[in-house]
Amino acid sequence: MQRIIIETPDSLSAILVGARWEAVTKLLPQGDVVIVTDANLFNLYGNRFPRFPVLKLKPGEDSKKLPVIQKLTTEMLRLGFDRTVFILAIGGGVVCDVAGFLASVYMRGVRCGYISTSLLAQVDASTGGKTGVNLGRIKNVIGTFRQPEFVICDTTMLRTLPDTEYMSGLAELIKTGLIGDRSIIDILENNQAAVLGRDRELLTDLVARSVRFKASVVAKDEKEGGIRRILNFGHTFGHAIELHQSVPHGFAVAAGMEIAARFSLEKKYIGVKVYDRIIRLLRQYGFHGEFKVTPRRVRELISHDKKKSGDMISFVFLKGIGKAEVKKLPVDEIVGFYSNFRDL
Amino acid sequence: MQRIIIETPDSLSAILVGARWEAVTKLLPQGDVVIVTDANLFNLYGNRFPRFPVLKLKPGEDSKKLPVIQKLTTEMLRLGFDRTVFILAIGGGVVCDVAGFLASVYMRGVRCGYISTSLLAQVDASTGGKTGVNLGRIKNVIGTFRQPEFVICDTTMLRTLPDTEYMSGLAELIKTGLIGDRSIIDILENNQAAVLGRDRELLTDLVARSVRFKASVVAKDEKEGGIRRILNFGHTFGHAIELHQSVPHGFAVAAGMEIAARFSLEKKYIGVKVYDRIIRLLRQYGFHGEFKVTPRRVRELISHDKKKSGDMISFVFLKGIGKAEVKKLPVDEIVGFYSNFRDL
Repeated sequence: MQRIIIETPDSLSAILVGARWEAVTKLLPQGDVVIVTDANLFNLYGNRFPRFPVLKLKPGEDSKKLPVIQKLTTEMLRLGFDRTVFILAIGGGVVCDVAGFLASVYMRGVRCGYISTSLLAQVDASTGGKTGVNLGRIKNVIGTFRQPEFVICDTTMLRTLPDTEYMSGLAELIKTGLIGDRSIIDILENNQAAVLGRDRELLTDLVARSVRFKASVVAKDEKEGGIRRILNFGHTFGHAIELHQSVPHGFAVAAGMEIAARFSLEKKYIGVKVYDRIIRLLRQYGFHGEFKVTPRRVRELISHDKKKSGDMISFVFLKGIGKAEVKKLPVDEIVGFYSNFRDL
Repeated sequence: MQRIIIETPDSLSAILVGARWEAVTKLLPQGDVVIVTDANLFNLYGNRFPRFPVLKLKPGEDSKKLPVIQKLTTEMLRLGFDRTVFILAIGGGVVCDVAGFLASVYMRGVRCGYISTSLLAQVDASTGGKTGVNLGRIKNVIGTFRQPEFVICDTTMLRTLPDTEYMSGLAELIKTGLIGDRSIIDILENNQAAVLGRDRELLTDLVARSVRFKASVVAKDEKEGGIRRILNFGHTFGHAIELHQSVPHGFAVAAGMEIAARFSLEKKYIGVKVYDRIIRLLRQYGFHGEFKVTPRRVRELISHDKKKSGDMISFVFLKGIGKAEVKKLPVDEIVGFYSNFRDL
């Protein structure tokens, strides 16, 4: 088990990678606890949950909305919970985002912790304290920055993950390797069978590397004023593709990374060898970018991007394997580049 | 003009008492600004608002709900605002609570400031950083702690306030005097004509005293873990009365203070002379407590109180004029006392 601490000005968050999720009972306070999960996870693990009231979400992104927050709040009140309650999220990104937001605003803030059950959430979503709900198709437009007290990443739970979701998580793992920890890239290139076989030890090592890198970034810049933006590598186009083509998050990010790598090549921030290596790795894990979204639609979707300020947008380029840099670019230049890229 | 600074671990908030509201333009940033107000205030002052987009709420407590937050977010997106936007609230408690909450969660947090237009908001609601919306009849159950960058308290604006709202604010002023600054009580006792005549200079002095006391409390305990609870003096019963009898907040708090003063007398925390002085002041300003809410209903309403933990509730007693103390009591004892009090 590896213990990684994220320290921000007003919180201390412990990420426990490779711990058994059942050990959560040792981390919970004496008083009231409520579990937030989704129906799928409840079916898989519910009979082993600690004995506390359970609030179940419908699985899927559609649960990330304000009316769900309102419903959960109503149920919490009905159960008589005051501001001493502890919210335990057991689930992937959707469950953690919703439960974390609920914990930020229920009675102006209560304690919370996560058991993170998907690869995507383990390597990315549940670390770093971003919470949020969507508004229609605009993602995470209502939310907070709020660190959970702990995140348990039990890599044995990844065995029950549907293939698509597992692959989706691998894309975020590739992202972390490309922007910050090149050893992740080496491991992914050289251990394909073990990765696809969901080898527990290897996954614990990979998730821990990813979390450690992310923790170092978040500790420097919790609220994404600067350096934290590099975590959005592949996400500018990724979000547009995700919305437009309705592909899972990781697949969209993989396609977004392909575009961003190409853009980095064109800008001469990386050479052809590095570029080829990135594309080879993406293909090795089955990511074949499809770029159906039109430049016009990209422009529209980018206009709601939280990384935008005025007509400029912060775009993340690669400067090598394991090295990223944020640059402000006019939206026009980004759309223009994409337009040419698609015509290739 | 008096400038009072509230410093918390992660913010600095300037309360400007007696400033002219039109001077707000000097405090606003260069970029995008959006104004949140209500229809009444827009009718009174809208033609002199700085030239920015205006989002109008329906006046009244019913605007404090999540669907309104959702609607405002939709309009902000439609207007193209990113996380660099500054939200300027112009209004009383409802407008500031809603706009402050919106600022806490829009794109995970944007900047904000208030022009506080009601006496209630100037002496209490807009200082201290509590934001929130209601859920049905349960008040402020969804919200955050979040300091605005500035609060302008222009006491000339109080001239357009309906009488009931003005009186409602006086009750909170009496509260601050009783729990923390006895000079407020002296002034109120000896200057009834000027107070009721809404004398600008006197009001500026009174509001500044109230804000100064509140700022000192909030700086010590922003998130209401301890000392800040004394600000809830009169509010345990006040909230129950407000909900049950549908009286304005201040009138309910005045009735709640009367009960709490009586409870303090019974506990021998204050003597008869102090008690009589409090009741005399309340009567002087027209607060004649009516206690229609039943003990049974009080128990029910208290069970949703954010000051509750388990079966105990933090109750604020007086120990003299200008001196309060929080004690944890069983809910049973509070309901029992109220039951006897009503039978007197």
